[in-house]
Order: sequence, then C-alpha cells, then structure tokens
Amino acid sequence: MAKQTPGGYNGRILRANLSDNSISVEATDELFCRKYLGGAGFVTYFLWKELRQGIDPLGSDNKLIFALGPLTGGSLPGGGRNCVGAKSPLTGGIAKSEVGGFWGAELKRAGYDAIIVEGKAEKPVYLWIHDGEASIRDASHLWGRKTKETQQAIRAELGDNRIRVAVIGPAGENLVRYACIMNGLYDAAGRGGLGAVAGSKNLKAIGVRGHQAPQVAEPGCVKELREWLLANMRLVRDFHEFGTGEAMGGFESTGNLPVRNFRDGLFPGVKVIDAQAVKDTIRVGMEACFGCPIRCKKVVQVEEPYPVDPAYGGPEYETLAALGSNCGIDNLKAIAKGNELCGAYSLDTISTGGVIAFAMECFERGLLSTRDTNGIELRFGNDEAMLEVIELIAKREGIGDLLGEGTARAAQRIGKGAQEFTMQVKGLEAGMHEPRAKPGLGLGYMVNPHGADHCCNIHDTMYVKGWPLKELRPFGLLEPVPLDDIGPRKVALFRLIQLKQIVFDCLVLCSFFPYSYQQVADVVAAVTGWDTGVMEQLRVAERVLTMARLFNIREGFTAADDTLPLRFFQPKTDGALADKPLNPTELERAKSYYYTLMGWDARTGIPTPEKLEELDIT
Amino acid sequence: MAKQTPGGYNGRILRANLSDNSISVEATDELFCRKYLGGAGFVTYFLWKELRQGIDPLGSDNKLIFALGPLTGGSLPGGGRNCVGAKSPLTGGIAKSEVGGFWGAELKRAGYDAIIVEGKAEKPVYLWIHDGEASIRDASHLWGRKTKETQQAIRAELGDNRIRVAVIGPAGENLVRYACIMNGLYDAAGRGGLGAVAGSKNLKAIGVRGHQAPQVAEPGCVKELREWLLANMRLVRDFHEFGTGEAMGGFESTGNLPVRNFRDGLFPGVKVIDAQAVKDTIRVGMEACFGCPIRCKKVVQVEEPYPVDPAYGGPEYETLAALGSNCGIDNLKAIAKGNELCGAYSLDTISTGGVIAFAMECFERGLLSTRDTNGIELRFGNDEAMLEVIELIAKREGIGDLLGEGTARAAQRIGKGAQEFTMQVKGLEAGMHEPRAKPGLGLGYMVNPHGADHCCNIHDTMYVKGWPLKELRPFGLLEPVPLDDIGPRKVALFRLIQLKQIVFDCLVLCSFFPYSYQQVADVVAAVTGWDTGVMEQLRVAERVLTMARLFNIREGFTAADDTLPLRFFQPKTDGALADKPLNPTELERAKSYYYTLMGWDARTGIPTPEKLEELDIT
Repeated sequence: MAKQTPGGYNGRILRANLSDNSISVEATDELFCRKYLGGAGFVTYFLWKELRQGIDPLGSDNKLIFALGPLTGGSLPGGGRNCVGAKSPLTGGIAKSEVGGFWGAELKRAGYDAIIVEGKAEKPVYLWIHDGEASIRDASHLWGRKTKETQQAIRAELGDNRIRVAVIGPAGENLVRYACIMNGLYDAAGRGGLGAVAGSKNLKAIGVRGHQAPQVAEPGCVKELREWLLANMRLVRDFHEFGTGEAMGGFESTGNLPVRNFRDGLFPGVKVIDAQAVKDTIRVGMEACFGCPIRCKKVVQVEEPYPVDPAYGGPEYETLAALGSNCGIDNLKAIAKGNELCGAYSLDTISTGGVIAFAMECFERGLLSTRDTNGIELRFGNDEAMLEVIELIAKREGIGDLLGEGTARAAQRIGKGAQEFTMQVKGLEAGMHEPRAKPGLGLGYMVNPHGADHCCNIHDTMYVKGWPLKELRPFGLLEPVPLDDIGPRKVALFRLIQLKQIVFDCLVLCSFFPYSYQQVADVVAAVTGWDTGVMEQLRVAERVLTMARLFNIREGFTAADDTLPLRFFQPKTDGALADKPLNPTELERAKSYYYTLMGWDARTGIPTPEKLEELDIT
Repeated sequence: MAKQTPGGYNGRILRANLSDNSISVEATDELFCRKYLGGAGFVTYFLWKELRQGIDPLGSDNKLIFALGPLTGGSLPGGGRNCVGAKSPLTGGIAKSEVGGFWGAELKRAGYDAIIVEGKAEKPVYLWIHDGEASIRDASHLWGRKTKETQQAIRAELGDNRIRVAVIGPAGENLVRYACIMNGLYDAAGRGGLGAVAGSKNLKAIGVRGHQAPQVAEPGCVKELREWLLANMRLVRDFHEFGTGEAMGGFESTGNLPVRNFRDGLFPGVKVIDAQAVKDTIRVGMEACFGCPIRCKKVVQVEEPYPVDPAYGGPEYETLAALGSNCGIDNLKAIAKGNELCGAYSLDTISTGGVIAFAMECFERGLLSTRDTNGIELRFGNDEAMLEVIELIAKREGIGDLLGEGTARAAQRIGKGAQEFTMQVKGLEAGMHEPRAKPGLGLGYMVNPHGADHCCNIHDTMYVKGWPLKELRPFGLLEPVPLDDIGPRKVALFRLIQLKQIVFDCLVLCSFFPYSYQQVADVVAAVTGWDTGVMEQLRVAERVLTMARLFNIREGFTAADDTLPLRFFQPKTDGALADKPLNPTELERAKSYYYTLMGWDARTGIPTPEKLEELDIT
C-alpha cells in the first residue's frame, strides 16, 4: 500500500482483538480513503470484507467498528461525530449508527481514523487510547454500572477529566438487542443494537484522549465554510433555539406524529410535550457537540415526582415522540425520566419507545395480560408503566426480558397475530416519522439496509418549498415534487437525498447542517487535497450503499424484506391521515424503480455484476 | 410562458415556412432554455415535438433546424459553432450535426437562438436575417452554383461582405443523401444529409448579419476561462500547429487508421498524406473559427496537375483518411482536390469517402464493373477515379446517382452480398476511427442515434493516460480503463464522455477545447445566471439523448439497429489489428449495460416510462 496520507486522515487504524488481548495498528492507503471516505464507508467496507456469513451477532466473530471521516475533529461545525457499526443483533443485517458529542474528535486527535474491535474478552475490559498509544484494561469493577458512573470512574482512574468515553450501561451488558453505545451521556450511537455487541464482547467502554490533529491540505476552505454557516445561522435557528421537536404540533396536525404505536392521528397532549414545552418547563440549558454553534442538545432537570439528572441532557424529538405520543403519554417529566434511564442504561430511545408502544397495544388487545407484565397495567398513556418497563428491559427481568428482544422477536413469541402490530422493518423499530405523511420516507424505511431508519432518508416535506429545494437546482431538479408523489421523480429525489446522506455519514457530518452537496465536496477537496467533486462523493455513497446491500444479501435478506408494516397501508384512526393509507402497489413500483436506479436487479434488488464491476466492488 | 430571458440567450426563435412564405418569431421561456440548453438540445426537442412519424425526410413535412447555445458568439473560445438537425434522408432517424465558422456567432448577434425552416418553397429561395429582421428572398439565379459563387453573389447583392452564409451546393440541390450544409467554405454541418433536406426545400442559403449580442449574467467567469485556455495552449498545441491529422502515422501503426474500406491495416503512404505532409507541401495558411486561438483550419493551395482553390480551406483528418487511406489513395494533392470539390458541391467528406471506398471494394470484388461505373476503373488507390466519382455523385450522374444514395441503399441495389462491405451504422458511414482499436468507440457507433458518429463518442486511447484521465478523477474514476476493455467500467466511462459531448453539443462548444466538466458548468452558470452545476448539465444531456432515442423508436428503429458492420468482428488483413477482431458477445453485453445505465430497457433499448417521467419528457 502507498504510504501517502491525504489531509484530514491519520492514516492509521487500530485493531484490538479482545480474545487474545492483542492490539495492532494498520496503515491505510490513499486509494482506500478516497474510495470509502471514512465513517459509514469504512464501517461498511470492513464488515463486508471481514465478517463471515451467518455469524452470531452476539458471538465473538462479530466485529465492532468505530470510524471517523477526514473532516472529523477539524474546525468545520458538524464534524465532531463518529460512526459505529457491526452485524446487528436486532436485524441480523448490517447496523451502523452515527453519533455526536466529542468522542470522535478526540479519537482523531489521539491518532486514529478507525477502531476495529474483534473477539470477546474473558472478563470485562475497556480500551484506553491516548496520543497514539492503546491498551486493553480491566473493567470488572465497572460492570453493572450506569454510563455516568462508568465515565466518572474511568476519568478518575486515569486522572484526566477531559477523557472522552464511549460507553455502555447495563442494557448493553445484558444484551438488550437495541442497546446503544453512548458517547458521553448525551449522545447515542442508537440504532441496531451496537451496545449489545459491545456487551457481548465484554467491552464496557473506550476512553480516548489526544492532542494532535492531522494536517489538512488547504485550511482556508474549511474556515470559509464555517464563516458561511455562521453568517447563515438563520437556517438552523429552530435547532439553535429549541433543539429538535419544535415542530411537533405541526406534525400532529398533518398526521406525521406517531401516536399510540402509529395507530392514531390526534394527540392534543402534543402541546405539553414538544420542544417549546420543554423550554418553558424543564429546560435548564443547551449544550453542543464538538465545535458546534447550533447547540441543539437540551439539558433538563426535574426534582419531583422523581429527579431527572441533567447530566443526561434532555429528550430529542425522537424521544419525545417515542416515549411520549407513540406511547400515548403526555407527561413531559416522565418522558424526561425515560430519556435519562435510556441514557444511563444505554438503550436506544426509539426502539425502546417502539417496543413499549407495541406492548401497550398488545396489552390493550388482550395479547398480553398482567400475568405477562409483572402486574403492570401496560396501557397507552400509562407513564409509570413506561418507566417501570424501561427498568425491566435494561435488566432483562420479567416482561423486560421479552421486550429486550425487540419488537419483531417479541411478537413471534407472543404469537396470536401480534406481528401485525410491530412497527418495524427488518426488525428495526421505525423512526418517529410517518410514511403515510411522507411516502418517500416510506420507501426509505423499506430499502435502507439498516431497517426503518429515518436518518438516511428523505423527509418529503422538506422538498415542497424552502432552501432544500434550492439545493436541488444544480442537479436539474427545477420543480418541487408533490408531497404525496411516490412516482419516478420522487424515487430519483429520494435516491439523491439518500446518497447525500451517506456522503454525510461517510464524512460523519451532522445532518442538521445546511451544507450543500457542492460545499461539502469543495471542503473535502480542500481538506484532503484531492481533485474530487460532487459526482465522486455520490459515487462513493453508491459504492457504500451497494456494499451494505451485499452484506444483507449474504445474510439471507431478499427483496421481500424491503417492505413496510401493514399498518402503513391502512388509514390512521383519526386526524389528517384518517383517509390516507399508502398504496402497496405504488410502493412496490417505487421500490423496483429505486433498484433500477441503483443498478440492482429491478425484481430481486440484487446488485448486478456489471454494477459491482463498475463500482470496483470485489 | 414566462418572459424572462436568461443571460446568453436572445429568447427568440425564428420560424420560416417556405410553403406559404411566412415568417414568425416565437419567444422561449427560461425553463425551456434550462431544460434543453440550446444547440442539439433545441434541435432534438423540436424534431421530437413537431415532426410526424413516417414523414419523407426529403418532403415538405421535414423541418430543418438551426440552433445556438448560450455561449454561442460570446467571448469564450470554441463558442462560434451552431447545430443543424432534421430527420435524416440517409438514416431515416434523427440527424444533427455541429458546425464551426462564423455563422452561429453572427446569428446570435442577429437576434435569434434558433431557426426552424418548414415546408418547401416553390422556387429556390434564401433566407436573409439581419439585426432581428428576416425575409425570404428569391434564389433562382443561385441554383446550380457552387458554394463559393453563391456566397459571393449573396454578399454582392446585399452589399455587405461580412454577411455569413450557410449554403448548399449542387449536391444538396440534387438530393445526395449525404449532402452537407456549409458554413462559409471551410466548415460543414456534415453528417446525415442536412444539405439534401435544405435542397428538398429549395432552400439555397441562409445569410445572417447582426450587431447586438445578448447580455450575460457575469462576464467575469467567461473571461477567466478564456485566460485559463490561453495559459494552457500547450494542451492544444498539435491542433494549433497542424490542425487535425498529425497523429495519422500513429493511427496506422496501432491499426486505428481505416485503410481500404476498413479492410486493411498497413498503409505506408500515410506519411505523405498526414498533417505533417500537408504542412510541408501544400499548406499556405491556417484559419480560425469565430474567436478561436487554436486556428486548426488548414488552408491549402495546389497549382498542378489541377488547381485547388485555397478559398475552400484544406482537408481535416477525417477527409485525409476518408478520401485517402480508406480509398487506398496516397496522393495528397488529389485528396486536397477532393476536399475542395466536396466543399464546393456541399458533400460530407466522410460519407463521400466511405461510399467511394465501398464502391472500390465492390468493383475489385466484381460486384460492380466498368459497365456500372461509366468506364471508370474504380479500384483502391485510383485517385483520378475518386475525383471523377465525386463529380458524378454531386451531379447524380451515372454511378454517382447510385452512390449518391449512400452506402446502405447502394448496397441494396447492387445486391449480391454487397451489404457485407458497407461500413455504416443505421445508414451513416463510419467516421475514420477504428472500433477494433477503440472498442468503446465501437459501442458509440452502435448506440448513437445518428449512426456511426465519431464526434459524440469516446476515443478510448485518450483515457489510458494524459490530461483527459485527470478530468475523470472528480467523478471518482481514479484508475485508467484499459484500452481493450469493453466491460462495465468502459461502458460507464463511455456514457459519461458521451453525455459530456452532448452537453458540448447543446452549448455548441467545440470538442477540441480541453474545458473540464466543471469549467463548462461554471461558465454556463455565470453566463445564464442559473444556479446550475455539472449534474444538471449531464441531466440535460441524458434528457436530450433519450429524446433522440424516442425519435428513432418512433421511426421504427429497434435494438437490432444498434449494431456494427460485420467487418469489425473480423480481424484486419494486416497490421496491428490483424489478430484483433471485436467480440460480438462482448459488444452486445456492453450495449445492454449501456441501455441499463441510460434507464432504457436492457433488452429492447426502449426508455422506460419511469425514466421518461423522471426526466420530464412528455
């Protein structure tokens, strides 16, 4: 391999084998960096190349991969994130999740672009990486502790309060299939059960500390884009002022807010759980990820009826909806408490809310009874029950053991048609966005390799008016695509947005930033020194997405897995979508056209040999 | 339609109906300009929209369309060209041809972006357009005259020596199916028989004169790119010094030079007919198109054995090969004379050379005899015969009447297996480039809507090393595609190059300029004021190419017409390609993948309804 390291990269990957307690460092070459960029690209590459078909996601053969991009830890706002990936214990397919905070930027300064964790430690361990050095350390004394205590203990024992920690709580240790990995206490690599993979390896945490960022080719361009952002903060004003969730009222009135397991539309309580309500009642501050002027992270504090520790930040929109409206709960303090518990135990709030909403519906329909629920009246709107069940899930006790398996597996065990009420794709509980309101997003839920993921997706509403539309003009998309269109123009638009999102995920750039395709390509060129452009960036995304698809196909996924829960093809019980189910034929047609645009077989969704050769995937 | 006219456009199209002697002016709107750009885009749009299926290309229902782009007549070198199109009397499909000189720039100053000529005049006419005014004038006195005399007469009778004239000679009047339209005396809209369409309408010429170029949004960017070019003239040094044809020796040694109807490889005489030989023997000057610093136009003069008038310039590479090596002729003076005759009569030199080479092979094989040829010994290498036959073709006399129908029709009339020796696709005689040496170009010959066109095509050799490769890096094509590769990577590369060429053809930019995709997109944005980019430009090209395909499908073309002459699947008799035939299975596979990449059915090549909707083609 060529030794030249492009700007923005350390050119080094750390490999830690927990089975034999060994650590090694591998150099990356420039062509590899350019073909996969970093983040989701690196994660997907190594999972595709290094995992064998059919391995147990919770066994020692799985690998847990952390990766940065060339912009990570630099001075461009939105670049403090990292990607984490593994074979998912929830879906059995590929899992990858991007996460904010400070950990990614710190790892960059510690001298690595990625970490590959292999094998399984005999006893609990944590990784400690500082300024190029790495060691595997005993974590027996940390096992069973919540994330906050763990972070405190690691900082204390290493004597540095600025160590950044990626960490799991008891939910990860107990192999809850949707346990997350926390970067510090606010930020989760949430989706797909990566915390369970860490737990299965007896990996409690990775602490990082570093002081040396790699050189970039032309720092001027990064500075310029940062200044552009600061001059255009109006574009992100809502995020700045409220964080996510300010628009929940509008979501409810348009039917986009999930209510009671995506069944209902109306939810008057929305006004007491939205971000405005958070601000007016329990918010005590706003925090930021590394180098971010948006500062979208709510910090909340509650004293009674139960304390909510502000150390765990506050609920994002996804959490407000998942533990709130989707469980029929309009008690904001309870939602905040649930958020704190998920952070402390390392539970994905979306899947947690999704599985509880599912259980509530099963309970109300008589598919579960108090005999199954440890006596809990697990009904929509029961906030106490929600909090109790989160505790049980994290500990895998009673009903929590069943629900810790995730919605799809729980439904199989419950039987009696419970499957009908699982709002998941490929096993991943749906994000808090409604395909009946956003059909393009529905297509994304269907085809995303990770399942019903709202991040790597289009939000159709954004492309009816406003600045995101303007950004499409340089692509020749000169006219808005109607909100409820799911024809070829929407499919092509979805694909473009999805590919852009994957570019962001490879760079591990935050999606909340209104950087255009061109701005991103220019800044990548400037940082790396490559003569790259928008088309190359999209081609990288195409390569990465196709590789993720190959991963799933290797694991037995077919086009039949690219589907939506039945409920989305039925109208909501009330509200704006009470007469607007999705049309399954239209969605299938859209899926087929999407396959075609991707160079995958229109019927099977299998990438053609020609496309693989063209993309240089071997 | 919105009235706003983007920078670089006049916003006006002239429609002249020769049947009823009427002239009208139509406004274009901005969306139309942006979706089709101009040049080949406008031509294709109007042919698709306005022609009925099955019309006689030489009847009054055909339309002859001239179109400019937003850069035409501006200060960017390479922007003096225009596109001409019609239903082709040679292929029965769409014909479009780009042509240099000064006519296009002058039409822009005369106030129009395009001219649509309809109907058929009772008696010969010419169009006279000056500073927004247009009239149809009698041309009875010009009929039968050569192009030079016609141009002189029009300038004289209108009293302005700076009038630019697009004109046909007797070959156009006599409906030779590959008659061209000359812009002045050096430059031909050569391919597809557009001169015959003019002749069929009794249209002898279009004279233009104007003084007012439209505004451009940001002139600075054009100036900058012009300065970049002037600072990088080394990239076009060969064109500047020799015009085309300097590399003919190299072509011969690699097998890329067509020799004796593409049959043979070796041609030692190449060294006395190449551009170096032209320079050393008969060249008396170099001329330029509008605003062009390259000045690639040879001017030659010969006194004996026959005079060659320098007014007609000199032979380009295509002519040197078509009338030279491909006819087995190594007499440079004869080639220069042939070039002059083609200019004077308005004959496409490529098709003329192609049909003569075909006839020579038929003669040598006994499929034609002196009884058919007016006694001419029509053998390879017989330069006198070549010149005699050109005269006969232009006048449609004797053997010239048969050969004036083009190779494919002539072969049908000759019968006896003559078809095997027709080096044409869809009826268009192949450019002077060898698919056995450049398989990507072979694919282009197959699938180009216009037939075996070398312009809208890849030249595989350019993408093995050198600056064109560098230009592909921003697209993520980081490694050269081997010369003889015809797999998916070459197909994707071909498509990208083809689409770029169509962008150039819509802008009617000269292909000899080493402007990158990005530079062109930037200058279009600057001139028009649009927030456009590379992706939109390529999307326009995709739209235009798909529309051209629809035109051909409407006329009955199928995937079976996307094929190559049998000879290309056989080795050459000698030289570097004596053991290198193309593989028909590989080419068919490449064709199918090309269809797929275009969003056309992989088997039939018919654009899918989804692709049409996505591209907004109705």
